[in-house]
Amino acid sequence: MQINISLEGEEIKKETEVISSQEKKIVPESELRQDIVTGDWVVIATGRAKRPEDFSKAEYSTHKLSDDKDNDDCLFCDPVKSGQEKDILIYSRNDNQWTLRVFPNKYPAFSRGRVPKPLEEGPYFAMTGTGYHEIIVTRDHDKHLPDLETIEIAEVFDAFQDRYLDLMKKKSVNYITIFHNFGKEAGASIAHPHSQLIAIPVVSPYIKQELDGAELYFKSLRKCVYCEMMEYEIKRKARVISENDEFIAFCPFASRSAFEIWVMPKKHNPYFERITDEEKVQLAEVFKDALSSIKRTVNNPPYNFYIHTSPCDGKDYRHYHWHIEILPRTSTWAGFELETGIEISMIQPEVAAKALQDSLK
Amino acid sequence: MQINISLEGEEIKKETEVISSQEKKIVPESELRQDIVTGDWVVIATGRAKRPEDFSKAEYSTHKLSDDKDNDDCLFCDPVKSGQEKDILIYSRNDNQWTLRVFPNKYPAFSRGRVPKPLEEGPYFAMTGTGYHEIIVTRDHDKHLPDLETIEIAEVFDAFQDRYLDLMKKKSVNYITIFHNFGKEAGASIAHPHSQLIAIPVVSPYIKQELDGAELYFKSLRKCVYCEMMEYEIKRKARVISENDEFIAFCPFASRSAFEIWVMPKKHNPYFERITDEEKVQLAEVFKDALSSIKRTVNNPPYNFYIHTSPCDGKDYRHYHWHIEILPRTSTWAGFELETGIEISMIQPEVAAKALQDSLK
Repeated sequence: MQINISLEGEEIKKETEVISSQEKKIVPESELRQDIVTGDWVVIATGRAKRPEDFSKAEYSTHKLSDDKDNDDCLFCDPVKSGQEKDILIYSRNDNQWTLRVFPNKYPAFSRGRVPKPLEEGPYFAMTGTGYHEIIVTRDHDKHLPDLETIEIAEVFDAFQDRYLDLMKKKSVNYITIFHNFGKEAGASIAHPHSQLIAIPVVSPYIKQELDGAELYFKSLRKCVYCEMMEYEIKRKARVISENDEFIAFCPFASRSAFEIWVMPKKHNPYFERITDEEKVQLAEVFKDALSSIKRTVNNPPYNFYIHTSPCDGKDYRHYHWHIEILPRTSTWAGFELETGIEISMIQPEVAAKALQDSLK
Repeated sequence: MQINISLEGEEIKKETEVISSQEKKIVPESELRQDIVTGDWVVIATGRAKRPEDFSKAEYSTHKLSDDKDNDDCLFCDPVKSGQEKDILIYSRNDNQWTLRVFPNKYPAFSRGRVPKPLEEGPYFAMTGTGYHEIIVTRDHDKHLPDLETIEIAEVFDAFQDRYLDLMKKKSVNYITIFHNFGKEAGASIAHPHSQLIAIPVVSPYIKQELDGAELYFKSLRKCVYCEMMEYEIKRKARVISENDEFIAFCPFASRSAFEIWVMPKKHNPYFERITDEEKVQLAEVFKDALSSIKRTVNNPPYNFYIHTSPCDGKDYRHYHWHIEILPRTSTWAGFELETGIEISMIQPEVAAKALQDSLK
């Protein structure tokens, strides 16, 4: 039995009008935006839209993890005492107190070894999961990245670069991903501020898509797609959160998450590991603004960030442009998003950017 | 300062030995398995491995949703009374009681409309989010899919097909995804058993990857990659959970989630919507086995399932093979997985399959 589809529900119409009048223009109830690099689509579902204030009301209570209550139980406050593996890298200040440490993950997703061994089975192919999995910890248990001084954040990038330069030389390593989980909903299991580095023999599917997209764009238009994007964003201003001489932070046009921010070097550069000391300080400045604006606008939400950079497999990636993607986790991914890879964002990136900009004033 | 990387921790070694002796062979501590269709990689991190019993001990308390306690508050027990939109489809039994209803989602991610309107901005491209978002509800509030009779499950597939055949004719529809979320961690917000259908103008990135992979395989080897996979699984037996004349359920070699199961027609067929009545019953039989084995082995965990089928955009997809992917959500996705698309599974698919098989005995 087929019955004609009825009109949109009253409730939705009303919500859309609120956003519309606030923005002083008519916005469509739902928008499919294409990522110009990967060709993927995201949905900006303004029919289900929220105002920036709605996000700030949300409580992310569960990002209080067990070791939040008592620093004595923290595995990372005193890594030696808590039985972590030996440090790979330690940064210290004049008074001999450590400020940052890097050590192997005690429960690595990859096992260390020289060369991955192929493992065939019928039509399938596999290899031993050779790789390196390291933890980068800053000293203060309660000071997360946006709370640190610019110079302390620059030191974190310094450690990232330091470890990258060492691991990229390993025979089994073709790709290094550096990422950070803040809050339980973003996958953190230990509250103490820490980033992770995974160095593996294979390139991740998402980065591969970006590399392919950037190469295709370059081949057909003789331009870096990220440079093009950035030039437009600087001109348009509406989605820019912060910028200085070397870096820019903006909400991408095809944001996959509400309040998503990308931090990008203004000069074309495919390789994160070639960042200079001066650039690290400038990056830290813009990066701190980006994280602070999210913390203020969205009530300190859980988030992940990732360094997207070229693989270290010896191939030519001159068309790529390294950057950092910051993804606040303000909603549980539902079945549709997990499966299709089409993400549903509840707020227009322009509306999100306005709120983030205002929070820095 | 660089210090040599120390050996694996004692604790990990021990855990690996337990699994090894149980399996009576030496397993590597971590394995990278390649999906033969998409070329993507998954990590089977047996260094962090769990035994099947560990999964059954887990509590998924939060999949009790608010309307679980009191059916009177349920939005789907009496959709008319709770103000849902008008039914598109109703199935009833002899006594005039409805058994299944389909109605539009009151809060759709896509807005209905004839043709998507292009929306350009600078270098970017977007279009209005035209589409259809429908809810498929079975009557009993407490009976989830594995608890239904085979014939009742066949009716659900009948409704999926019915709506698919109607929506595929719409001008704006090029791809239809049908999926189901069970439990809060899998994205369900309403406890009453329901599936969802989204019909949109664009093909999802994940399906596109599968289509491309299947086409490439077909072009180079003149064979359907899914048929090849299935033939091998039937011969190998170790990962098969259930089968009858028309369908098979097995744990894929490159499982992305612990206890992941794919249900596939044995005869090559790119199009779900061409399923016959007899096939629907056979599908229901194998599908019920698959869901029941997960429910019994993993303590009724949250899960998603999706029908993967060819787009309805008029192009030729003869190389594709429709199937259903069931993904239990036994762990929170961490930053690494969300970002890279490389998923970390804590159990070997063969070990998971053995436990699932045993649960059906």
